[in-house]
Amino acid sequence: MKVEVECARCLLHRGVFEITEATNDSSLQFEIASALLGLLAKEFKPTAVPAYVGTERDRLIKRMTDNADPYAEIKRRSNRKALEFLPFARELVLNESSPELRFRKACLCSIVGNVMEFDIPGHTFRCEDIGGLVQRAEDDLAIDEVAEIFDAVKKARRILYLTDNAGEIALDKLLVGELKTVGAQVIVAVKGGPVINDATMEDAKYVGMEKIADDVITTGTDAVGLMPEQCSREFLNVYGSVDLVLAKGMGYVETLTELDLAFPHALLLRTKCQPVANFLEIERGKNVAKLML
Amino acid sequence: MKVEVECARCLLHRGVFEITEATNDSSLQFEIASALLGLLAKEFKPTAVPAYVGTERDRLIKRMTDNADPYAEIKRRSNRKALEFLPFARELVLNESSPELRFRKACLCSIVGNVMEFDIPGHTFRCEDIGGLVQRAEDDLAIDEVAEIFDAVKKARRILYLTDNAGEIALDKLLVGELKTVGAQVIVAVKGGPVINDATMEDAKYVGMEKIADDVITTGTDAVGLMPEQCSREFLNVYGSVDLVLAKGMGYVETLTELDLAFPHALLLRTKCQPVANFLEIERGKNVAKLML
Repeated sequence: MKVEVECARCLLHRGVFEITEATNDSSLQFEIASALLGLLAKEFKPTAVPAYVGTERDRLIKRMTDNADPYAEIKRRSNRKALEFLPFARELVLNESSPELRFRKACLCSIVGNVMEFDIPGHTFRCEDIGGLVQRAEDDLAIDEVAEIFDAVKKARRILYLTDNAGEIALDKLLVGELKTVGAQVIVAVKGGPVINDATMEDAKYVGMEKIADDVITTGTDAVGLMPEQCSREFLNVYGSVDLVLAKGMGYVETLTELDLAFPHALLLRTKCQPVANFLEIERGKNVAKLML
Repeated sequence: MKVEVECARCLLHRGVFEITEATNDSSLQFEIASALLGLLAKEFKPTAVPAYVGTERDRLIKRMTDNADPYAEIKRRSNRKALEFLPFARELVLNESSPELRFRKACLCSIVGNVMEFDIPGHTFRCEDIGGLVQRAEDDLAIDEVAEIFDAVKKARRILYLTDNAGEIALDKLLVGELKTVGAQVIVAVKGGPVINDATMEDAKYVGMEKIADDVITTGTDAVGLMPEQCSREFLNVYGSVDLVLAKGMGYVETLTELDLAFPHALLLRTKCQPVANFLEIERGKNVAKLML
């Protein structure tokens, strides 16, 4: 997926937020903002992929601030908060009567993880609201290929699960558990280094993902989404060995749609921005469970 | 007033909006966005004045799109809508019992003009709501030097009134009328060419400003705020001949505070952004009637 003109705003908006999170030194902030504007001037063209530009933006900010992880505290808060929701979400999944219904509920919980901003201080949602959140996730499911994804899961022997954000990764545990119940081997991959608020190995460990998944690996890179040329050989070996991918979030829409996919990839996400919504031909603020074959 | 780091976001945000208003040609949109990012990379530094950078941004967009007035339709809509409010606002002013109270009410109506976004389609405010809007403008008046401004008006023989946006300029007529009632000669100045949604001579004529003011002139330039080095000799002659300036909106805060002022200048505005609010040491979303001596 390529950028739309309005992506420029968002790329800079997030960048300025990150700069002010990463350093309090005002003159350094200006220096980085100017460098970031220069990077965008060079990279922002109709052939650009938003996740690629976002990755370069984050690398520039991390390098210039000497702050390897501007979102560290935000990610910790998100994990803590999401873990409070987990038992309530698990209850919802386990209350379903069939593997198929449990799988559907776990997909919706995993999407709720993508919808929620766990790091907002004074979050207005209480854990008891999870039922309503899942119901709303269902109501907002503009592309509903959960049944097709379930069929693909049943056929798969080995599945790679690509996570998105910290916080969200706690709720992903339920879906990873359901994938295993259906019978597949499940490898979960987090990012190889900090980039925006994406989950890394630290987050996977914090939420106890290794107790559910058969293996937890990293992409070997701090890139948003999947950029095979930047991934580690170890990751690519795993990627080449599975027969199904489940991928969370917009970064994977942006990047997987740039690749020639050799086997099925399922996308689970919320369309948080207009360009991704346009690309998927649905409204902004809707949910997606889509199987790309 | 200098930029804060977060001004980068707003400068680009408005720019992208203007680009998409000014042309539908997608490849041209990208070309301009990239050029704008390059301009910002060069000009965005701690010594920059937001209005100066905004002026250069708008000139670049107008030049590259060959569209001299991207806000033309928005300005027309705003004028039409604001004129509907005018008789209701006039009633409020005329109902006051003394020149001082009428002046205060006219200042508040003029600030309401700066607060309202007249161009939003399906605007939720009805003309009958004007009383409530003026009351809220009063409640939000975080810097209230209306009395000091009134004293300065009483002493002035010749006043220059610097307008801000189209739409808003319709409500400015009430304040110009009150200034004249107190006894001064009043010259109103609009911008010399289109820039954002600032009022130009076309807007002044549309709302009938020449029937109230002693003269309506332009700054002789399409710059945001006041940049004397870019103004026409005619404007500077008038500026040099008055003993009080009333200036509307944030663009004049940004630019007048960069000048050595030789006589009193009064500011009437809403703090629509955080950097201007910080500069005035009040909250964002508050109103200001401030006399700079």
